[in-house]
Amino acid sequence: MKTAIGVDVGGTNIKLCAVNEKGRVLKETSLPTQSGEGPEHLVARVAEVIGAWKDVRGPVGLGLAGDVDPDRGTLRFTPNLRGWAGFPFQKTLSRKLRRPVIVENDANCAVWGGYVVELKRKATNVVGVTLGTGVGGGLVVQGKLYHGATGSAGEIGHTKVADPGEKCNCGNEGCLEAYAGNYGIVRTARRLMSKDPDNGRVLQELCPNMDLLTPKHLTEAAERGDGVAHRVWQHTGRMLAIGLSNLVLVLNPDTLLILGGVSQAGRWLLDPIRDGLSKQPFRTPFAAATVRMAANPNAGCVGAGLLALEADR
Amino acid sequence: MKTAIGVDVGGTNIKLCAVNEKGRVLKETSLPTQSGEGPEHLVARVAEVIGAWKDVRGPVGLGLAGDVDPDRGTLRFTPNLRGWAGFPFQKTLSRKLRRPVIVENDANCAVWGGYVVELKRKATNVVGVTLGTGVGGGLVVQGKLYHGATGSAGEIGHTKVADPGEKCNCGNEGCLEAYAGNYGIVRTARRLMSKDPDNGRVLQELCPNMDLLTPKHLTEAAERGDGVAHRVWQHTGRMLAIGLSNLVLVLNPDTLLILGGVSQAGRWLLDPIRDGLSKQPFRTPFAAATVRMAANPNAGCVGAGLLALEADR
Repeated sequence: MKTAIGVDVGGTNIKLCAVNEKGRVLKETSLPTQSGEGPEHLVARVAEVIGAWKDVRGPVGLGLAGDVDPDRGTLRFTPNLRGWAGFPFQKTLSRKLRRPVIVENDANCAVWGGYVVELKRKATNVVGVTLGTGVGGGLVVQGKLYHGATGSAGEIGHTKVADPGEKCNCGNEGCLEAYAGNYGIVRTARRLMSKDPDNGRVLQELCPNMDLLTPKHLTEAAERGDGVAHRVWQHTGRMLAIGLSNLVLVLNPDTLLILGGVSQAGRWLLDPIRDGLSKQPFRTPFAAATVRMAANPNAGCVGAGLLALEADR
Repeated sequence: MKTAIGVDVGGTNIKLCAVNEKGRVLKETSLPTQSGEGPEHLVARVAEVIGAWKDVRGPVGLGLAGDVDPDRGTLRFTPNLRGWAGFPFQKTLSRKLRRPVIVENDANCAVWGGYVVELKRKATNVVGVTLGTGVGGGLVVQGKLYHGATGSAGEIGHTKVADPGEKCNCGNEGCLEAYAGNYGIVRTARRLMSKDPDNGRVLQELCPNMDLLTPKHLTEAAERGDGVAHRVWQHTGRMLAIGLSNLVLVLNPDTLLILGGVSQAGRWLLDPIRDGLSKQPFRTPFAAATVRMAANPNAGCVGAGLLALEADR
């Protein structure tokens, strides 16, 4: 069975893994990103790790956060890795390793990883959403990752779901990310908490300092019956349902795949999403779309490797 | 050159045309729809016209408003042609004519007609929007009409652009159609008129009875400097820009194609759309998307014929 190496560059850590064609992880490791040291330093360290994996053959897929130009193997625009735009990632890494390298948006990698590993390629048209600090996404159309005109497709997190709406990190208002990204969820929680502290006693106990609040606290508080936490997930799920409904109406997918850490909220998030999707008057496309959640922390890394294999075919 | 026949069933009239592969109209006619007489009556009259066109060979494409099941050749759901759901259009018409027949959503037909005739198939990924009483749409992906899981793809008019929002004919609130469908545009105009009649004197003169107002009056009034009409197009274009931006972010198309009667509003509508699209922080997909307007009243009929040819390949 063919193998490949996937690299997922996050804001804090770089994950590396060796995968086979089915997405099984054969080997894995991680490094601190040290983004302040610049892209050249990053590529050198990644090449060092991969160079030491002498038993793993195959191409390399590199997943980066931002607007990736897959043809040139560069980042065109990235809010989180400032100064990295334009750096020739593909060229530099492939020269160092003497292997084929592809560069891809990290959410596209995660969706492709989920498509192969969670869905076993059994779906045809998939809308994938990645929930984390930001909200990303990717589309699988006719069993292939869809890139669009410039490789920018799948920016689901910045579709508008409210007008006027909450401020988003991108500079716009009302984006799905402003409600369903970690910072949006936490903002909703702080607001509801300050309005109705009596209903948020469990949450208060779990996280006495609201500045340190994370979605994980909200999941645990919801499990323990906290009213505020419950309402936060309701609101988050409702806004996600608006964004996902828009995609179902346009793309008529067979599967909606929700990936990422927040999906650990499980039914607290899934129930209001399903509720929102079930209230649509135009039934057929909603009846056809199965909602799946997958909390695989390696999906991005695995997907990067699998996309490298796909390009190498 | 191969030929086909296109049929576009509207609420009032049925248009029929013979087209060649390039979408040139060789022959055309129209009939009143008489929707109250039921689908069997309609199919019989359509078959009669086509039967008399003895010199036109080729398959037949039938465009219907609603959720079409292209595999079965039926309507699954249709708000405007009540009681027609389930009727075997494809089977009945192909038996009568002894020709291949395909059944397709009317907006998909119009988008495909625009793709072949206006864009000459030179685009790869197109988001098409049809503006009329309702707002419909269709997607061209990799040069082919995209159907999705159940043939329901492209329901752009019912994507949500405001929350809460104006009431839509579908039963939901905040749909794009509630702002950019004829009834939505006219509702906006009546509201602005009642708030600020002094700025709507030209409009008042052109259409003294606001119950009879149409988008055409608003285009004419805007041309003649009417303040209310101008603001109506601004608002309509702004809401269209929200809906279209969402699609650009997700689908990263090379072309946005706006079709239908309202597109006659020309720059009054196009300027605020372009303005809205230009304000997006995430530039690449917007820079890649060309906005085109096409006011071809036969696009649906032509596209139905062309899709029949496509299926017959």
